[in-house]
Amino acid sequence: MSLTIRIINNISTNPNLFFQSTPKRPYSPSTKFQSKPIHHRNSLLPSVYKFRKMSASSFSSSTQIKGSLIDPDGGSLVDLIVAESERANKTLEAESMPKVNLTRIDLGWVHVISEGWASPLKGFMREDEYLQSLHFNSIRMKDGSVVNMSLPIVLAVDDEAKERIGNFKDVGLVGPDGDVIAILRSIEIYKHNKEERTTRTWGTTAPGLPYVEEAITPAGNWLIGGDLEVLKPIKYNDGLDHYRLSPRQLRNEFDRRRADAVFAFQLRNPVHNGHALLMNDTRSRLLEMGFKNPILLLHPLGGFTKADDVPLDVRMEQHSKVLEDGVLDPETTIVAIFPSPMHYAGPTEVQWHAKARINAGANFYIVGRDPAGMGHPTEKRDLYDPDHGKKVLSMAPGLEKLNILPFRVAAYDTGARKMAFFDPSRAKDFLFISGTKMRTYARTGENPPDGFMCPGGWEVLVKYYRSLQSEEVMKQPAVPSA
Amino acid sequence: MSLTIRIINNISTNPNLFFQSTPKRPYSPSTKFQSKPIHHRNSLLPSVYKFRKMSASSFSSSTQIKGSLIDPDGGSLVDLIVAESERANKTLEAESMPKVNLTRIDLGWVHVISEGWASPLKGFMREDEYLQSLHFNSIRMKDGSVVNMSLPIVLAVDDEAKERIGNFKDVGLVGPDGDVIAILRSIEIYKHNKEERTTRTWGTTAPGLPYVEEAITPAGNWLIGGDLEVLKPIKYNDGLDHYRLSPRQLRNEFDRRRADAVFAFQLRNPVHNGHALLMNDTRSRLLEMGFKNPILLLHPLGGFTKADDVPLDVRMEQHSKVLEDGVLDPETTIVAIFPSPMHYAGPTEVQWHAKARINAGANFYIVGRDPAGMGHPTEKRDLYDPDHGKKVLSMAPGLEKLNILPFRVAAYDTGARKMAFFDPSRAKDFLFISGTKMRTYARTGENPPDGFMCPGGWEVLVKYYRSLQSEEVMKQPAVPSA
Repeated sequence: MSLTIRIINNISTNPNLFFQSTPKRPYSPSTKFQSKPIHHRNSLLPSVYKFRKMSASSFSSSTQIKGSLIDPDGGSLVDLIVAESERANKTLEAESMPKVNLTRIDLGWVHVISEGWASPLKGFMREDEYLQSLHFNSIRMKDGSVVNMSLPIVLAVDDEAKERIGNFKDVGLVGPDGDVIAILRSIEIYKHNKEERTTRTWGTTAPGLPYVEEAITPAGNWLIGGDLEVLKPIKYNDGLDHYRLSPRQLRNEFDRRRADAVFAFQLRNPVHNGHALLMNDTRSRLLEMGFKNPILLLHPLGGFTKADDVPLDVRMEQHSKVLEDGVLDPETTIVAIFPSPMHYAGPTEVQWHAKARINAGANFYIVGRDPAGMGHPTEKRDLYDPDHGKKVLSMAPGLEKLNILPFRVAAYDTGARKMAFFDPSRAKDFLFISGTKMRTYARTGENPPDGFMCPGGWEVLVKYYRSLQSEEVMKQPAVPSA
Repeated sequence: MSLTIRIINNISTNPNLFFQSTPKRPYSPSTKFQSKPIHHRNSLLPSVYKFRKMSASSFSSSTQIKGSLIDPDGGSLVDLIVAESERANKTLEAESMPKVNLTRIDLGWVHVISEGWASPLKGFMREDEYLQSLHFNSIRMKDGSVVNMSLPIVLAVDDEAKERIGNFKDVGLVGPDGDVIAILRSIEIYKHNKEERTTRTWGTTAPGLPYVEEAITPAGNWLIGGDLEVLKPIKYNDGLDHYRLSPRQLRNEFDRRRADAVFAFQLRNPVHNGHALLMNDTRSRLLEMGFKNPILLLHPLGGFTKADDVPLDVRMEQHSKVLEDGVLDPETTIVAIFPSPMHYAGPTEVQWHAKARINAGANFYIVGRDPAGMGHPTEKRDLYDPDHGKKVLSMAPGLEKLNILPFRVAAYDTGARKMAFFDPSRAKDFLFISGTKMRTYARTGENPPDGFMCPGGWEVLVKYYRSLQSEEVMKQPAVPSA
């Protein structure tokens, strides 16, 4: 009996998975969007790359290391933290304003906006920004240029708060702990049509969308946009703040390491050797192309995630073991937390994930199967077509300057006894190991196949999955034994 | 008792209606999207106009009349009708191919695509075009430029048809009357996710969306894209074909009349004197700005409309009476049919309406309250925010070259005894006359107030509404009288 195991949650057996499409091709009404089979490892960097104006040789022919490899959207990085000298005054001022209470997710967005991940956005969206985001996934700037902006970054208030604000032009934002943490200036309040926001962002009204249930359904019927001033840097005091590097800090670190290419890898799951394979493989390709010092930004998402995802603290411990065990090279890898909340909005959200990494200084972005996707909440299928993410990303307005690197699926090759790029010609040799399967291994004390994940990383997961198991036992109602 | 009557169906009493927003302003994160009150007639051409590079003086200073006032999207007008000399051969070839049956609405789209209304689209969308339309309302061209493309223009096939097509590269398209009318070449078949298409296009899943019920719900689960070759021009033989001028014919007519500005007015309702007021007012403004010969394109939509809209033949008769009665000047007006089916998709669809008129040679586009909107099918409100249409239109990618002319609401001024722009300072003097109200007038034999509509046009409507009434009587079950 052949065991079917999965690497990526909800992977389907769709054969198209194993073909790389050629996105980023400009529109040509007379030619077909083609999918081409890829049969060799060199294809990790597909033709997409060739379309970009920037070539490796143009870098390698120059001995000068560029201070910044890619400009932030809008030309300069937004930084909305008020100067220390103004903090006391602004805090006093904020306390005199009408207040708006923030949820933990709202606070996450304040963090995201304040550090410039969403540059050129300078606050929660006003209606013109919101409508452009919703309809065009992008915003037109004064000079006619376009920046990508696929997720509405908005703040909801209820009728009572709207009433309280009245004609005030500025409001104080109160964090979940009761402190005034920011000012929103020159506000605009407009209708929060939740159905329109949800349908245009997710392309579905399936029940059980995690972000919708957590942050939209319970939210108020108004959105409040304005310019943000954050009184001091947002900290979480969870022992992980040192991982929360701002786009400015990341850019400085890339410069310090004299990076001539930065490739970002977004994830919200533990790192296994399949991920490591493609990150290392990408590095090799970049070196072959003439880059001298490509740096990997391993960039786990740190904001809201759904209940069955592995929590951030466990993931960070697991990631650090992966570096300790030498699976990734610490010299050429930066591990940091991306503070955004997760929407699970597939093709719409992957654009946000890529765009934010432009602002953090990455000029290459790795995209896999079904990015930012999840299983359909009620049906036995992926919520999104698993190929749409990379296609939409490759065609998205405002992301032309970013080099998109689509990758093939890796799986456990039972012949070679290691993770390898899936080869459809000997499909039966490959095992796919899902999160559910990992949980089963941990519960039964069984180890995954050698080479699936480094032992240190696996230990972290075993500990976590077993703690879940005992929690589940604790949650069982006490039943007298027979 | 003050009688509340409406001009535009579903008009609300929202005071913002009577303010012109200033759309087409480029994005500036630090400034607010402002709405400004407008108190004088000159404001019909708002600041939007001033942002355009083209100025009236640049036209009037030149004695040369431009052959084409605005380039078609993609640079040249698409024309997919096969040459007469090739018709016989291509028809034979088409008959040998696997066949796809078209509905009346599909045929409407073949008509639209074949004449270049959707330039640069050369056929039903393949997946890359479809995804860009759905996510970005626009498509990127080879040269990096962007054209607007807000509605997916797609052809659905069912499982059985997909099976039948198999590996064939080209298919024949069969019209509702059983004739092979076109070839679709180099086809691509991809999934028709109806929920995603509907939610991203309409921003709602409200039941009773006319186009969804008519054309999407009953359609197949696959979309077939490809390059279209139409064997001969599409004709309807309904006595109205002479009104169906192609974009090429319209452009030629504008040239023949030596137009130096063309302003398009899209409608799907009878023309009343409020419409006439704003069309004539627009012409006056264009003359004041220095244009010598502005031509009005009065452009009723001729494709699928919902059951309670006034049918095309009645509207065309009514429109011709409006010209006969001298309400609009035939010398400076062209009445033609826009062959597109109607989606009632509000802010998404108004972009299509504007974009298609670029291809027809119009360089000014008039937009009113709640364009392409309708009442919510199940709730007592507009389906869309009535201001979103003009806002979205003013910011839409690919429409920068078109001059958008938002207009204020006109109503019956009981003081002046004529249609006039609504003046909120004496709101009680104005009557709004809705379609429902018109129907009631016609039924009771009462006339609308003098000056609401020219007598000839009103007669056409009375005849139509009375015919409806007798149909309704005919539909009553026969009940014996007591």
